[in-house]
Amino acid sequence: MVIVTVYVHVKADCVEKFIRATRENAENSRKEPGIARFDVIQEAENPTRFMLIEAYRNAEAPAAHKETSHYMKWRDAVESMMAEPRTNRKYVEISPDESGW
Amino acid sequence: MVIVTVYVHVKADCVEKFIRATRENAENSRKEPGIARFDVIQEAENPTRFMLIEAYRNAEAPAAHKETSHYMKWRDAVESMMAEPRTNRKYVEISPDESGW
Repeated sequence: MVIVTVYVHVKADCVEKFIRATRENAENSRKEPGIARFDVIQEAENPTRFMLIEAYRNAEAPAAHKETSHYMKWRDAVESMMAEPRTNRKYVEISPDESGW
Repeated sequence: MVIVTVYVHVKADCVEKFIRATRENAENSRKEPGIARFDVIQEAENPTRFMLIEAYRNAEAPAAHKETSHYMKWRDAVESMMAEPRTNRKYVEISPDESGW
């Protein structure tokens, strides 16, 4: 598995718009065969900051995700909402093992 | 829900020991009624760095977790393995909604 955490900081007046666009992308992403999980969470004390936790079943799945129409729609929709560039980190699963995702 | 992400940096010679202790804690934690998920992931490019993603069903569940014997065993076992103090951030769920965790 490949687990990607994406850190997003949006402009204060874009929080609701960002949530709407990102919920739609997450719901569609979870239907992709290569995606085990696609979670979106919001910092409790700083609601302009979000994390996406994207769990891919194999090494090819992240690139396949970036070719979907829902990803490209999201990417374009949120471009002007960013307060700063997104950052990400890549992880491997320790627990649960692959079958638990 | 209360989602807590915990960032852990362990000493290089403690990686395997940390994984063993943390797997055991995660497996037991997932049996707690207040815990929806308890994931442990390891940074792909820096294997001494880990993230725990702890999804609690309500505001009381994090304190209940800290009173369990498996948590206290883990806390004591990993104390000497830390390269620096653990940090954490608190989040709320955006997608999926509570029923999806």
